[in-house]
Amino acid sequence: MTVEQLNDHGQLRHLISLADLSRTEIEKILDRANHYLTPIGQPPPRDTILQGHTVANLFFEASTRTRASFELAAKRLSADVLNLDVNMSSRAKGESLLDTIYTLQAMQVDIFVVRDAGTGVPMRIADHVFPHVSVLNAGESDTSHPTQGLLDLMTIQKHKGDVGNLCVAIVGDIRHSRVARSATEALTKFGVGELRLVGPQELLPKEPIEGTQSYAELDRGIEGADVVMALRIQKERFAQLGDIPDPQEYFRRFGLAEERMQIAKPDAIVMHPGPMNRGVEIDGALADGPRSVIQEQVTNGLAVRMAVLSLVYEHVLTTRGEQC
Amino acid sequence: MTVEQLNDHGQLRHLISLADLSRTEIEKILDRANHYLTPIGQPPPRDTILQGHTVANLFFEASTRTRASFELAAKRLSADVLNLDVNMSSRAKGESLLDTIYTLQAMQVDIFVVRDAGTGVPMRIADHVFPHVSVLNAGESDTSHPTQGLLDLMTIQKHKGDVGNLCVAIVGDIRHSRVARSATEALTKFGVGELRLVGPQELLPKEPIEGTQSYAELDRGIEGADVVMALRIQKERFAQLGDIPDPQEYFRRFGLAEERMQIAKPDAIVMHPGPMNRGVEIDGALADGPRSVIQEQVTNGLAVRMAVLSLVYEHVLTTRGEQC
Amino acid sequence: MTVEQLNDHGQLRHLISLADLSRTEIEKILDRANHYLTPIGQPPPRDTILQGHTVANLFFEASTRTRASFELAAKRLSADVLNLDVNMSSRAKGESLLDTIYTLQAMQVDIFVVRDAGTGVPMRIADHVFPHVSVLNAGESDTSHPTQGLLDLMTIQKHKGDVGNLCVAIVGDIRHSRVARSATEALTKFGVGELRLVGPQELLPKEPIEGTQSYAELDRGIEGADVVMALRIQKERFAQLGDIPDPQEYFRRFGLAEERMQIAKPDAIVMHPGPMNRGVEIDGALADGPRSVIQEQVTNGLAVRMAVLSLVYEHVLTTRGEQC
Repeated sequence: MTVEQLNDHGQLRHLISLADLSRTEIEKILDRANHYLTPIGQPPPRDTILQGHTVANLFFEASTRTRASFELAAKRLSADVLNLDVNMSSRAKGESLLDTIYTLQAMQVDIFVVRDAGTGVPMRIADHVFPHVSVLNAGESDTSHPTQGLLDLMTIQKHKGDVGNLCVAIVGDIRHSRVARSATEALTKFGVGELRLVGPQELLPKEPIEGTQSYAELDRGIEGADVVMALRIQKERFAQLGDIPDPQEYFRRFGLAEERMQIAKPDAIVMHPGPMNRGVEIDGALADGPRSVIQEQVTNGLAVRMAVLSLVYEHVLTTRGEQC
Repeated sequence: MTVEQLNDHGQLRHLISLADLSRTEIEKILDRANHYLTPIGQPPPRDTILQGHTVANLFFEASTRTRASFELAAKRLSADVLNLDVNMSSRAKGESLLDTIYTLQAMQVDIFVVRDAGTGVPMRIADHVFPHVSVLNAGESDTSHPTQGLLDLMTIQKHKGDVGNLCVAIVGDIRHSRVARSATEALTKFGVGELRLVGPQELLPKEPIEGTQSYAELDRGIEGADVVMALRIQKERFAQLGDIPDPQEYFRRFGLAEERMQIAKPDAIVMHPGPMNRGVEIDGALADGPRSVIQEQVTNGLAVRMAVLSLVYEHVLTTRGEQC
Repeated sequence: MTVEQLNDHGQLRHLISLADLSRTEIEKILDRANHYLTPIGQPPPRDTILQGHTVANLFFEASTRTRASFELAAKRLSADVLNLDVNMSSRAKGESLLDTIYTLQAMQVDIFVVRDAGTGVPMRIADHVFPHVSVLNAGESDTSHPTQGLLDLMTIQKHKGDVGNLCVAIVGDIRHSRVARSATEALTKFGVGELRLVGPQELLPKEPIEGTQSYAELDRGIEGADVVMALRIQKERFAQLGDIPDPQEYFRRFGLAEERMQIAKPDAIVMHPGPMNRGVEIDGALADGPRSVIQEQVTNGLAVRMAVLSLVYEHVLTTRGEQC
C-alpha cells in the first residue's frame, strides 16, 4: 500500500482493503455499526454528522444493491449525495479517471465511494487526492470488497459470538470472488477456528491461503460447520468447468439446500452476499428459511457503511484543522 | 386481491387498484390531496411527515413524468428518495424481483412505488412485504394506474362538481389503457351520470364494462359531453387497425380539435394523461386552449401522490407500534 | 432575443447568453459568486435560500461535470433537485420538449437548467414558461455556455486583476466552441487588453469577431500572453483538418506544454474548461503544474452556479408577489 488507510492520529482515512487494518480498528468500525442499527419496522438510523458535506458515488461497474446501500448510508448521515454511474466505454471516451476525481474534489467532494472492475483503482485514487479527502472501496475487481467483509464478520458475530470457536465454510467460486477474499481477511484476523474454502477444483485458490483449507467436495466442506456462506456464481464460469457444464449440475454438486445442510451443525446459519441465483448456488427455501441471515447481512451492511462514512469524516475534520 | 389495501384499522396500506376502495376512502385521499395544493407560482406544498423515512421508486418500465411526480411528492414530504430505474433485461440477468424487494426492505425502505409492464406485479410484491411496508402502484401493464384515476376524478370534480350529473367521454385506445381502466373505476364508483368509451372498434373493450357505453364514432361519443378525455395512442397500434393505417387518419377520425368539440357542451373541458402526441389524438391548439385542464391534471397528480404517501405513512406508524 | 434576461425590476430572470448582459450585471453575479467560495478542505458553501423550491436539470446532451456542478450548486442552496437525463432519441419518441417543460412547470418546478445540442433551445423554453419561471443555459450547441464564460472571467480576475491590462489567448477549435464564444463575450465586455483566438486555420472563426485577432500559429498567438486557455478538441475534427491528421500532430502544432509556454509571460496562467485530452491539447505536466488554474475554474464554476441560482430566485420571489 502506498497510502496508509489510517492518518497520523490513527483515525480511519481510507477503506481500501481489510488486509492491513488491525483487529482493534475493525472492532471500532463494528462498534460504530452496531450503534447505527434500529429494528426493521422502526425508523431507520439517522445522524446529522455529514450535513453540509458531499459524498460522491462513482460506480464504474453496474451495481444496484451496493450503490443503494452507500447512497442510503450517506443520506441517513445527512450528506449531499452525488451519484455518478459511469460505464467503462464513456470513461474511455471522456476524461481520465484521475481528472474526474480532481474535478469532483475541486467541487468540494470530500468522500469518494468507488466501485471499479480494475484492480488497484481505489488505491490509485487514494494516492492522488488531497490530504483531507477519503476514498472508500465499494468493490474492486476480484480483489477486495472490504465493507462486505465487515458486514459478514458482523453478522457472524451477532449470531455466533467469538469467531475463534467457529467453523466457517465459504462455498462457490472462491478464486474470482472479492467477497471470499475480504471475508477471509476479516475472519482470519479475528482468529476464526476453522475456515474452509469449498468449490469445484477449478474455482479454488491457485495458491493455498494461510489459515484456510480447501475442499473440492461440498459435504466434506460443510460437515460440522457453524456458518455456511454461498457465493454467487457467474453463468460464464460453466464453460470453463470440465464436469459441471450447467447450473443444474452445479446445484447438484455445490448448491446449498436444507437437506445438504443436515451435515452442518444443527444451528448452522446460511449467508449469501446477493444477488442470489436461486436454484443454482442456493435453494430458495433455504434462502427464505430460519437458517438464513441473508437479509440481516443487508441491514448490517448499511450500518457498516454508515459507520465507515462517519469515521472517515472524523479524519476530514481533523485534517481540516491542520491544513494551510 | 390476496392482500387488503386497508389495514385492520381501516387505514390505507397499499394502493394497487381503485376497484375495491370505497367511495369514502377515495374521498379521504382527495381531501388530503386538496390540502397539498398551492397555486402555481407560490412555493410548492411541503410537509416534514416523511422525514427520516425512505421511499424507493422502482421503475421497471421507462417513465419521466410519473417518476418525477412521485419523486417530487416524496421529497416535498421530506423523505429520502431512492430511484432505481431497472430495465427488464437487467432484471432477467440479475436477482429476482422479490429478492430486490427483500434487499431494499432490509435497508429499511418502508414505501415502494412500483411501475411494471407485468399484470399483478404490485400485488405480488404487496403479498410478500413485511406488515409495516406499503406498496404503491405507479402503473401496471394495461391493468391499473390508480393515482392517475384519482387525479382525473379530482380534476373533474374541481371543474364540474358532483360527477353524478356529468357525461364523461374517454376517447382512444380504451382496450389497452390502464388510464381508461382506472378512470372508469373512479368515475363509476362516484356514480358518474354517463360514461362513454369512444374509439375504433378494435380498440374498444372486448366485453362490455358495467356502467359504460361504447361508441365507435367520435361525434356521437362526445355529443353533449361535459368532459372529454383523450388517451395516448401508441404508434404500434396502426398496424392492427384495418381502416386507420396512420396517425393522419386517426386524427381525422378520433383526434380532438376545437371544431370537433363544438358538439360537446359549450363549457366542456378537455383532458389528457400525457405524454401527448400532438396532431394525433389531440390538436395542439386545443391542448393549449381555454378548455384544456391538462396541466392542472399534472399539478393535481402530484398532490394525489403526496396524499397517498402521507396516508400510507400513517399505516407504517400504526403497524410499527404493534410489531413485536 | 425575444424574452429579456432581466425582469422589469432589473433582476436576473434567465441566463441564456452573456451577449446582452451589462458589465454591471455580470459584476453582480461575480460578487455573489465570491460570496459562495470557501477554501478547499473546509465545508462547502451552504445557504438555505432555495429550501422548499425545485430545480430541474434537463440534460438533453450527456454531461458529467456541468450536471454535477449545477446539481451540487442547487443542493448546497437547499433546493430539491430533479435530474432528467433525456437523450435525443427518447425525446423524439416521447413528448415534445415544450410539453416536458409544461409538465414540470405544473409540478411547480420554478428553475430549469437546460443543456441541449440545438441552438436556440434555452431561449425557446424561456419564451414559453410562466412569468415567475427561470431558465438557465448549461451549454447550447456551439453557441453559448454562459456560466462557463463567467467562471473563466472570474478565474482570470482573481489571478490577474483588471482584464483591461491583459493579453488573453484562447487556443484550439475556436469555430465550434461555445466555451470560446462565451469567454469572448465576457472578456470583451470587460475591455480585455488583447484577445487572441489561436488555432488551425480551419478552426478559426469564419468571420472576424470584434475585439479579437486570429492567429493560425501557436507561438505567435501566445507570445507575451498573461492567460492561455486551451480548448478541448473533438477527435472527429482531425478528418477535416488538411495538414493535422492526428492527435500527435495536433499536439506538435497547437498543444500546450511548459516549453511552449516560455514564450508567454513568465507568470502566465493556463486554463482548460475540461474534460481534458491530456497529450493532445495540453500536456499533463502543464495541467498539473504551478501555472495551471484548471481546478480553480471548477471551484469557481460551482460558485458561479450558486450565484446565478440564488439571483434568479430573487426574480421568482418578486414575480410571485405580482401574479394574480
